[in-house]
Amino acid sequence: MGFCQIELLRHINKHNMQNGSGKNVLKPMDSEQLREYGHRMVDFIADYYKTIEDFPVLSQVQPGYLHQLLPDSAPDHPETLDQVLDDVRAKILPGVTHWQSPGFFAYYPSNSSVAGFLGEMLSAGLGIVGFSWVTSPAATELEMIVLDWLAKLLNLPKEFLSKGNGGGVIQGSASEAVLVVLIAARDKVLRSAGKNALGKLVVYSSDQTHSALQKACQIAGIHPENCRVLETDASTNYALRPELLQEAVSKDLKAGLIPFFLCANVGTTSSTAVDPLAALGKIANSNEIWFHVDAAYAGSACICPEYRKYIDGVETADSFNMNAHKWFLTNFDCSLLWVKEQDSLTEALSTNPEFLKNKASQANLVVDYKDWQIPLGRRFRSLKLWMVLRLYGAETLKSYIRNHIKLAKYFEKLVSQDPNFEIVTPRIFSLVCFRLVPKNDDEKKCNNQNRKLLEAANSSGKLFMSHTALSGKIVLRCAIGAPLTEEKHMKEAWKVIQDEASFLLHK
Amino acid sequence: MGFCQIELLRHINKHNMQNGSGKNVLKPMDSEQLREYGHRMVDFIADYYKTIEDFPVLSQVQPGYLHQLLPDSAPDHPETLDQVLDDVRAKILPGVTHWQSPGFFAYYPSNSSVAGFLGEMLSAGLGIVGFSWVTSPAATELEMIVLDWLAKLLNLPKEFLSKGNGGGVIQGSASEAVLVVLIAARDKVLRSAGKNALGKLVVYSSDQTHSALQKACQIAGIHPENCRVLETDASTNYALRPELLQEAVSKDLKAGLIPFFLCANVGTTSSTAVDPLAALGKIANSNEIWFHVDAAYAGSACICPEYRKYIDGVETADSFNMNAHKWFLTNFDCSLLWVKEQDSLTEALSTNPEFLKNKASQANLVVDYKDWQIPLGRRFRSLKLWMVLRLYGAETLKSYIRNHIKLAKYFEKLVSQDPNFEIVTPRIFSLVCFRLVPKNDDEKKCNNQNRKLLEAANSSGKLFMSHTALSGKIVLRCAIGAPLTEEKHMKEAWKVIQDEASFLLHK
Repeated sequence: MGFCQIELLRHINKHNMQNGSGKNVLKPMDSEQLREYGHRMVDFIADYYKTIEDFPVLSQVQPGYLHQLLPDSAPDHPETLDQVLDDVRAKILPGVTHWQSPGFFAYYPSNSSVAGFLGEMLSAGLGIVGFSWVTSPAATELEMIVLDWLAKLLNLPKEFLSKGNGGGVIQGSASEAVLVVLIAARDKVLRSAGKNALGKLVVYSSDQTHSALQKACQIAGIHPENCRVLETDASTNYALRPELLQEAVSKDLKAGLIPFFLCANVGTTSSTAVDPLAALGKIANSNEIWFHVDAAYAGSACICPEYRKYIDGVETADSFNMNAHKWFLTNFDCSLLWVKEQDSLTEALSTNPEFLKNKASQANLVVDYKDWQIPLGRRFRSLKLWMVLRLYGAETLKSYIRNHIKLAKYFEKLVSQDPNFEIVTPRIFSLVCFRLVPKNDDEKKCNNQNRKLLEAANSSGKLFMSHTALSGKIVLRCAIGAPLTEEKHMKEAWKVIQDEASFLLHK
Repeated sequence: MGFCQIELLRHINKHNMQNGSGKNVLKPMDSEQLREYGHRMVDFIADYYKTIEDFPVLSQVQPGYLHQLLPDSAPDHPETLDQVLDDVRAKILPGVTHWQSPGFFAYYPSNSSVAGFLGEMLSAGLGIVGFSWVTSPAATELEMIVLDWLAKLLNLPKEFLSKGNGGGVIQGSASEAVLVVLIAARDKVLRSAGKNALGKLVVYSSDQTHSALQKACQIAGIHPENCRVLETDASTNYALRPELLQEAVSKDLKAGLIPFFLCANVGTTSSTAVDPLAALGKIANSNEIWFHVDAAYAGSACICPEYRKYIDGVETADSFNMNAHKWFLTNFDCSLLWVKEQDSLTEALSTNPEFLKNKASQANLVVDYKDWQIPLGRRFRSLKLWMVLRLYGAETLKSYIRNHIKLAKYFEKLVSQDPNFEIVTPRIFSLVCFRLVPKNDDEKKCNNQNRKLLEAANSSGKLFMSHTALSGKIVLRCAIGAPLTEEKHMKEAWKVIQDEASFLLHK
């Protein structure tokens, strides 16, 4: 023990003796304390999952609730783990919306799993920061390897594999994925068109595209009037029509603008719409437009041969994104991005300060993922994806996906058998878009009834769904994908929805 | 058990029976399996810390080593945790650079701790995604509270507290922190100057500023020729001279350009230089330049009254950043950003799609941190910072910082007693900048000798240091801050350095 620990202990012991305790003083890092406290935290979390169905899925607290419960300033002296865990139970958990609850059907799922959790633990335990290869070669190389594994499971074209100029990288989120490729595409064009051409650059997407693209455009300085948000409707189930893209591109070219980026969707956030990649990609390719495919949610399903068709045409894409943290049992955050030309990314995002120079990087022998992303630092995130792939195996993961889709079909059947409800768009994956259709109500009243129904169902604590709007209609979204969800939960959720609907209709 | 689990189990059992196993099949999520496997992982990690000094600090593998050791594709069927942990030991750990080793002195530290690790576990265990208040009110509110706690520990001006229009937010990294405030500042100016004025915007910083600023400028589309990198030298210990800033601003104004962003440093990456905040802030304020203070590393020290002086003048800043994941016992990633005007951030980064609308947000009753950052999704990162503050307490954290500074002083003394070495810049915090000064060698030879010395010392496996360049001199950086580092490690490190130096000098 050096004077560091001795001094610390002296100080802490003094305080704790004053307080009558003195046992179990936590050192900054000590293997046996980590073991003891870590075991207690494992039990706390295991107990949480054991009782997860006892909590209201959507937190029912009011804004500002926690300020009432916690002190105004940090403690001067150590508190015990018991005190902290008591506070987690009494003060934090009531303010938690339980994403892993079997009754969570909002937004899209954000899967946790035993394997994903173990991977997070190991990553936090090793505590490395993997910005350059040399800062932990295993972090960079494992990431390249598991991204290749997954590219093969998805049957992505070989240009996306790490051999050659392509490759995969783990981003924190789909927002960061679309931002880095937008920046790469922007700078590629501006290198020839000149940086004053920024105001001429045009981005294309459907009106169903995730707001992440809008945000990326804001950050990258794309002029808002040059963001073409192409309209979709029920006739294509909210998929983008290639003719519309072609028209827009031609018009912009005639106006002297520079079409440079297209974002297509496989599984939109609102309704899992699937854009026709091959036809869109053809237009993008022939106009030298960077073609990005956002399959954040539905990409996971494409490891099943019967769903692979939804990314047919991905060979025309320049980049492809799927979030393993949504529906692939890998804890948030783990967003997978593949590009065909890593040079475009690194030319836009590289910096090379003296304090980060090292032999391997200077000799160009290695990938330094810092140049593929916004931040410098990065966690060892590939560990959790690797552990998910190994501890479950590809076949189990396919079964996992298929089971959620089966549950969605079951829920869809329940909804469609009730004349008070309608399915709004055909279900493709594990999201069911439906709504209450009260007889003789106009659209506005109908929307209001659906808003009320959603609020009532979510206030029950039994489930949490979210909503969207499609062609002006308020639509309820039941997105199935929590690891613990079973048929009985769908049955229970449907009963709550029917009961609340019945109450609303007869009020 | 629903048909989900039954089907999965049937499939998995079939496979495992074929393979003669069948025991302990991992379910996607099961509280008892999480408990069992979680305990095993805790032991694995505790054992790692017990033996952490047995590993070479800097990984000694060659580029591509892992491709030789792992298969080309993901397994179809589940493997066991034993198999995975065996591979971690045999294949991953050799490729790990051990940031938590007591011999890690490179870059800046990235602290892990028992409390930080517990916080990471709990965050991964709850598995929430806190983009909007409603998605887990506790995540947003705890973050506001602990950022207020820390603002008070740092004695930041009250405009940075969450009451009113200011507040703190946890970013992933200092790179993201500087990017979001740069975007906020950019858009604030462009709202009045017009978006075509982008080419006129000018950014100021010293040549010691972290490359994160350069990257943020690249992303934000600031023209490279408008990035004023102001020279520093030994006369100010590499701090930015206010006169130089004033000259540059005046010149740019005369040329019709728009000065809009200044990044000052408290503790530069190369040498912990401290820019004079008050004088710089005065110039920034009177020219309506956004003033950002990057105290990523040294900010932690400023909770000690005797080091608080280094951020005197922070009251003139618009934003302030400190990385709790560097030197504050909070596992990476946890970068703390405070701003005085949250509106500037949210006006630049907000999106409001229908599928995320909810009562609390629409009524403007809550903070939605998605509008304070690049990505949409975010982990429950405030838990780990809260646990660090509670399980250690402010006084212990101050002792922790002081102890590392004491160790740095000790190392500085060792170096300064050896006539073959020199201290290059005065030590302020826990970084010692030094170099070998062989007699009669010219600058180039001297630099080469220092490069050789660094490589030899790092190859020993006993320690890992990194380097920088100051006024053309190659300088060795010994950054003390790993939680396990004690005086004996400094002594050992110095012996390795002296031995290698002696070998080099007598070759």
